Amino acid sequence: MLTQENLTSLSDIADLNQLKFELNHLPAVDVGDYIGELPAERRAIAFRLLNKGQAIDVFEYLPPEVQEELIGSLHDTHIRQIVEAMRPDDRAALFDELPAGVVKRLLQQLSSEERQATATILGYLDGTAGRVMTTEYVRLREGLTVGEALSKIRLSDRDKETIYYAYVTDDNRKLLAVVSLRQLLFTLPDALIGDIASDRVLRARTEMPQEEVAQLMKRYDLIALPVVDREDRLVGIITIDDVVDILEEEATEDIQKLAGVSGGDEAALSEPQVTIRKRLPWLLGNIVLYVGAASAIAPFQKTIALVPVLAVIMPILSNASGNVAIQALSVTVRGLGVGEVTPDDTLQILRKEILAGLATALGLGLSLGILSLIWSTPNERWVAIVASMVMSINVLVAATLGTLIPMGLKRLNLDPALISGPLLTTVLDAVGFFTFLSMISLALNVFHFKS
Amino acid sequence: MLTQENLTSLSDIADLNQLKFELNHLPAVDVGDYIGELPAERRAIAFRLLNKGQAIDVFEYLPPEVQEELIGSLHDTHIRQIVEAMRPDDRAALFDELPAGVVKRLLQQLSSEERQATATILGYLDGTAGRVMTTEYVRLREGLTVGEALSKIRLSDRDKETIYYAYVTDDNRKLLAVVSLRQLLFTLPDALIGDIASDRVLRARTEMPQEEVAQLMKRYDLIALPVVDREDRLVGIITIDDVVDILEEEATEDIQKLAGVSGGDEAALSEPQVTIRKRLPWLLGNIVLYVGAASAIAPFQKTIALVPVLAVIMPILSNASGNVAIQALSVTVRGLGVGEVTPDDTLQILRKEILAGLATALGLGLSLGILSLIWSTPNERWVAIVASMVMSINVLVAATLGTLIPMGLKRLNLDPALISGPLLTTVLDAVGFFTFLSMISLALNVFHFKS
Repeated sequence: MLTQENLTSLSDIADLNQLKFELNHLPAVDVGDYIGELPAERRAIAFRLLNKGQAIDVFEYLPPEVQEELIGSLHDTHIRQIVEAMRPDDRAALFDELPAGVVKRLLQQLSSEERQATATILGYLDGTAGRVMTTEYVRLREGLTVGEALSKIRLSDRDKETIYYAYVTDDNRKLLAVVSLRQLLFTLPDALIGDIASDRVLRARTEMPQEEVAQLMKRYDLIALPVVDREDRLVGIITIDDVVDILEEEATEDIQKLAGVSGGDEAALSEPQVTIRKRLPWLLGNIVLYVGAASAIAPFQKTIALVPVLAVIMPILSNASGNVAIQALSVTVRGLGVGEVTPDDTLQILRKEILAGLATALGLGLSLGILSLIWSTPNERWVAIVASMVMSINVLVAATLGTLIPMGLKRLNLDPALISGPLLTTVLDAVGFFTFLSMISLALNVFHFKS
Repeated sequence: MLTQENLTSLSDIADLNQLKFELNHLPAVDVGDYIGELPAERRAIAFRLLNKGQAIDVFEYLPPEVQEELIGSLHDTHIRQIVEAMRPDDRAALFDELPAGVVKRLLQQLSSEERQATATILGYLDGTAGRVMTTEYVRLREGLTVGEALSKIRLSDRDKETIYYAYVTDDNRKLLAVVSLRQLLFTLPDALIGDIASDRVLRARTEMPQEEVAQLMKRYDLIALPVVDREDRLVGIITIDDVVDILEEEATEDIQKLAGVSGGDEAALSEPQVTIRKRLPWLLGNIVLYVGAASAIAPFQKTIALVPVLAVIMPILSNASGNVAIQALSVTVRGLGVGEVTPDDTLQILRKEILAGLATALGLGLSLGILSLIWSTPNERWVAIVASMVMSINVLVAATLGTLIPMGLKRLNLDPALISGPLLTTVLDAVGFFTFLSMISLALNVFHFKS
């Protein structure tokens, strides 16, 4: 199999016939990558070497800016053929990225059937089942025999996204049952579809969030899931390849949101200005918030001047409780993300976090106490006791909040990753610093501890 | 469709016939959940209500401890039937969880064919293609006609994990080509398999890491991927449902490892002692490391006593550069995880992080400078300049390390998520605090700034 490197050198020695052969025989996704990385002036040339079927497949894998460029530089007839033959869901995704003017022109050139299919998908909200489904699927009537059904599948458009499931509907397109190609093959040809199809058919409503669709298909190991409207009429299907992409997208979102990247959708190789836009506002916002935490310290500057070992202890206090919070937050957000836990499990998971948190609080509290003893001067030894106590309490609060906050957000139907790890640690710092310094001041002023 | 709640109440009113009907008609995964959550003494009763096919399917979805319990309480013949009928990959996964003695007894009861299949899978390393594959697939010879191939598929064991792809091999099982059921259906029955099968067939070697298998199948939208040994002989296939699980598992691992959860595989509803084992050692280790960071402060206690506003500024410095590092780390680790970037892109991604980092350094440096001005006494104003400078440098270092470290780890074939966010921020704190306090001391001692 030729690699990317082979291809590039082939295009350099300009052996066009060999290149053409390779471009038409390699997987479309590889050819898409190859054309996407060519210098702009050579992309249209390479694309014209593709035969029609391959051109349609490859086009879907090109980056949006290259798609737009090709739409501008290729002949209108060529473009119309490609866009007409695209799967409705891929076409809708393309139209999402293109300028409105270009979309309008392309829509006008589509056949009314394909235009309707695209409009249907674009009519649903982003991130819902309706938006990720395709309108190309195999539909059967109950009265058909297995043999007739197989003939119908054979005669149907080869481009149906999957033929491995066929859906049985009534005259009003109401979804009644599902039958797999496997069942059709394993049954005698004169059996009736109505007799072998299963009427316990899982389905998604058009407005179901895409991550719920993905979890449903994962749970039941489905290759395809039918999508129905409010009247239970079949409007499309979602296929497993889309689910794989959705699951990856959702996991990336969780990871990045937990780290404070706005939107959770920064590409690793994005432009620097995208990176700045996704990260800087949140960082600046967090600094403003952190002023709150630091303000908790500001009134105690005299105390710190009296007991400077506090400046050594406080970062450890902040760091450790922050880490505890981030651990609890990450495990809980991910547990919710993969559907392993639901808000109904709040008490159970909280019990676990508090029990584990107690042990952690003890361990970290003791550690900080010992360290404080080592660092403090003989007169400051009492600080170690306060440090231990505040550390233990802060760690327990951190574990509790790291669990309760995402659970609460999910219960309110909000994104559990809405509160990022650093945001939570900022709040914990404010509370921790204030408690710690207040107790130290109290000890200094009321109990007249020496410093 | 009955829900979990319905089922539970059904079992309470003891309408066993209705329960039996439901248990045999609901999806196996739901029945598995239901039985898993029953009180221990009722699990075997419920399980005995299942007919053979459903019992086999349900057994695979039970938690390992319930599987073990049932193996102990059900009749040997019943258990042997179930374990014999399990898919080889699921059986291998079960044997992984069971005590060695139980595995030995079960292995002895298996037919030699199934025992061989299980032994083959268990012979490969955990986390490789060989370990997640199944040995049940459809194999064809080149000389067959399409009609004969379809008959062979129809006659083959219904339990083949997927019949949607068939693999063409020679007499030595060497993998030659692949043909999809779709192609078979769309071709005339007397065409030869050798003529329609594609010889450009993607394959995984048995030792390929499971995450690479998953990325490969995702990239090429494959429902199944053949697995070959060193001699290119077909030994198994990996199916898309396994890939979905692998991708989820890998994402969870990344999220948890970035947050410092050892192994990255803590279940959200694990026992408290598991949580403690997964989190506390790392937290304690991090505190020991953080002693390094705090030790960077300890020698400067006098400086802090002279300029107490430092105790307000330092947590902000630490917090902001830590956040920058975590953002860069998360985007890079995830980019590597989904195969969006490879170590070859290091320069390109570093360029982006440095350019974006410069803008971020400027923004955060200025912010801290302004805040320092507000908090400091008139004599301390000069501290603001030092704080701005150190913040800017630290932020730039944070963005660079957050990118370079995972890239470097990946290049060394190590796990890019090996260094968690908090670990990196600890290092940054040590460097940042030391630089900051050294510069302040220098200013105090050499330039005789007042405090």
